[in-house]
Amino acid sequence: MAEDGLMEKIVSLAKRRGFIYQGSEIYGGLAGTWDYGPLGVALKKNIETLWWRMFVDGRDDMYGIDSAILMNPKVWEASGHVGGFSDPLVECKKCHSRFRADQIGWTESNNQMAGIACSVCGSSDWTEVKRFNMMFRTSVGSVDGTDTTVYLRPETAQGMFVNFKNIIDSFHPRLPFGIAQIGRNFRNEIAPRDFIFRVRELEIMEFEYFIEEKMWQDQFEYWRKQMHAWFAALGFSADDIREEEIGDGDRAHYSKRTIDFHFKYPHKFDEIGGLAYRTDFDLKNHIEKSGEDLRYLDPVTNEKFVPHVLEPTFGLGRHVLAAMVKAFTEDEMGGESRIVMKLPPHLAPIKAAVSPLLKNKPELVDKAREVYTALKKEVPQIMWDDNGNIGKRYRRQDEIGTPFCITIDFDTLGENPELADTVTLRYRDTGEQERLSITDAIKKVSESVKFIG
Amino acid sequence: MAEDGLMEKIVSLAKRRGFIYQGSEIYGGLAGTWDYGPLGVALKKNIETLWWRMFVDGRDDMYGIDSAILMNPKVWEASGHVGGFSDPLVECKKCHSRFRADQIGWTESNNQMAGIACSVCGSSDWTEVKRFNMMFRTSVGSVDGTDTTVYLRPETAQGMFVNFKNIIDSFHPRLPFGIAQIGRNFRNEIAPRDFIFRVRELEIMEFEYFIEEKMWQDQFEYWRKQMHAWFAALGFSADDIREEEIGDGDRAHYSKRTIDFHFKYPHKFDEIGGLAYRTDFDLKNHIEKSGEDLRYLDPVTNEKFVPHVLEPTFGLGRHVLAAMVKAFTEDEMGGESRIVMKLPPHLAPIKAAVSPLLKNKPELVDKAREVYTALKKEVPQIMWDDNGNIGKRYRRQDEIGTPFCITIDFDTLGENPELADTVTLRYRDTGEQERLSITDAIKKVSESVKFIG
Repeated sequence: MAEDGLMEKIVSLAKRRGFIYQGSEIYGGLAGTWDYGPLGVALKKNIETLWWRMFVDGRDDMYGIDSAILMNPKVWEASGHVGGFSDPLVECKKCHSRFRADQIGWTESNNQMAGIACSVCGSSDWTEVKRFNMMFRTSVGSVDGTDTTVYLRPETAQGMFVNFKNIIDSFHPRLPFGIAQIGRNFRNEIAPRDFIFRVRELEIMEFEYFIEEKMWQDQFEYWRKQMHAWFAALGFSADDIREEEIGDGDRAHYSKRTIDFHFKYPHKFDEIGGLAYRTDFDLKNHIEKSGEDLRYLDPVTNEKFVPHVLEPTFGLGRHVLAAMVKAFTEDEMGGESRIVMKLPPHLAPIKAAVSPLLKNKPELVDKAREVYTALKKEVPQIMWDDNGNIGKRYRRQDEIGTPFCITIDFDTLGENPELADTVTLRYRDTGEQERLSITDAIKKVSESVKFIG
Repeated sequence: MAEDGLMEKIVSLAKRRGFIYQGSEIYGGLAGTWDYGPLGVALKKNIETLWWRMFVDGRDDMYGIDSAILMNPKVWEASGHVGGFSDPLVECKKCHSRFRADQIGWTESNNQMAGIACSVCGSSDWTEVKRFNMMFRTSVGSVDGTDTTVYLRPETAQGMFVNFKNIIDSFHPRLPFGIAQIGRNFRNEIAPRDFIFRVRELEIMEFEYFIEEKMWQDQFEYWRKQMHAWFAALGFSADDIREEEIGDGDRAHYSKRTIDFHFKYPHKFDEIGGLAYRTDFDLKNHIEKSGEDLRYLDPVTNEKFVPHVLEPTFGLGRHVLAAMVKAFTEDEMGGESRIVMKLPPHLAPIKAAVSPLLKNKPELVDKAREVYTALKKEVPQIMWDDNGNIGKRYRRQDEIGTPFCITIDFDTLGENPELADTVTLRYRDTGEQERLSITDAIKKVSESVKFIG
């Protein structure tokens, strides 16, 4: 398992260097909320962009949407969330500490608390396991003075189902096809924890892929492989990801088969995404509750039927955390210990830092600015860095995962005529340095940070 | 003013072609919510990406963040929203219709309803103007059984203020510098209306730019110009945008000077963005309520002080609507009337459509696929289109604003050897066609869709 204290080190680096801060920190926070700082936003955006490119823009059969967080409450009646989206809550009768039962050993299928000890007082005397609905509720007012109770969506999936007919009407796609979305969701977690792993406000990247029922097993295997290809694109190795087949009693109410994908987080192997076969559960319920015809008309056979659905889901914040966990490295360089985030270049928040050797020499600064501007035109995520000496800059850039550092020195200016218009390109992982022409250095950085899928 | 029925035409096209759908439509909708379809998402993303590139990645003095929607409720006490974020609500005593008073002629400064007639029954007998707080409220539960009332944020700005110290600590920026964010906000609008213009769930792009107090007038003028440069980058002309200086009695409580930027929407010239000088109001209040030291330490003078703030704000949905309004054109081509969205190529959701002349000729389809794949590698927003005949495809692509259509025909395959490996490139706005080599066509499209700022 993961090394001791790794999560704490990552939380500390995340705050110190501007990846992730506690939400509302100056007011003591708000449990389960986190704010992304400049480097966290960049890392998150890079993951989102790659996902959108691989699963939406990169395919002809996928339709991206962005649906509202507030939905008509009937959506959540049809989906079963009003009745069933709840966590099992249990209370220790002795010390009155409350827990999510499934986090301390209870499962849906065994429904047993016997033998589980309270981690606070050690007692095994528990209340009944009760259900706690995780949807946040709010009230929408209107000009006629009436109020309607609505929910903050707990998942993006229903946005795809309620737009199924719209997509059919606008684009006339043939089966199989998918509707994709990246969006924010809200879950009133009883016990948020493990940094950005279990939170109350979370982003999900997912799609509903509509198929003919008879294809479900083939398509399940196809998407299972695609999900592994996605994890590989993030630089995760086969050892980082485990599949967990969810048993009959533990699957969500709508699913006939579900595999959870677990990543090797510091706290344990835990869910980063999942692949669920949702059958025709959602569309059928929406047909029933809305009265709309959400069937698909096969243009060849002229048959009308309700498609079945596969749903690959990816937790965005959990991907950010996984990328940081995977990248976090402590090693030695030049006899000194260092922290280095070995992020794949296409994910790194900053692709290259450009520095003048000395910041008080205007001719160096001007030349470095030139290089910086030229490089930024090709690659937007470039940082200007003239703080401290070169050694300190390298250490700082290592810590935030910058794969390249470019330094402009007196040779660049032509002090040694043979080296005029060359720069030093320094590699993050090895610390090695190379002397290259400005043009070649820009080319090297631009090409190395592209993802070649 | 705008032509009759323009908004209705845009709403209809938006739904028909997959730009924007009513939220929760199959359940009769939820007032003030809208879902972006595939083309709307692409257009919105293109605007966001341009904004982020121009104001965040393109500058050295801007720090992008992504803060949580749910914040500690003390944030909204400090900001004045709990007490003051409200709309003026008035009711007709005769027919009991309710209105937002400021939408029917009442202003903060005149506080007069006399002379205003009810648009439903014609009476001028009104109740007192009352305040209606626009923040959505919800409740966060916790494991100890207590609940906390929290709000859905009505603006992103407070996310920047509460992270001011974090940015200082992680990046040590010098004044002036800014903190930027694109994010979703919620306002319990009494009367959502005008399509995606006045909604309950809205995205805002904005930044807080921290300055020394004495610089505020210069900086105000600087950002005012930058905002005009931004509108020009979207293809808006000087006639599309009007400035409205907000008078003393009508400004938000925190502002010492505000200019609203109005776009020529179909319903009227109305707000698309704004520039506010917020003084040191927010940071001072957060210092007072949180007890944290949010002052800036000038590294030269060693003086500690609370910076002042300029806030350029841009409504993202309103930008999408403005882009569609600006682009929507009805003209004649080849003796037939057509609808064409003359979007600037860098904003168009689809940059080019690639089609085989006939879809039942495998050799044409294969060759077209080749061109499609090669082009998509350079430019992700490319559509495969083999539906209907070429004339219909052109009309459909015109309606969604695709600047280029590429057609692969028998000459491409070498039927006329001189034209082997050439394609037809058709221009949206003029309908003109050009015969080009595949390589040149790809180059032309790739270069034409880049934004040259």
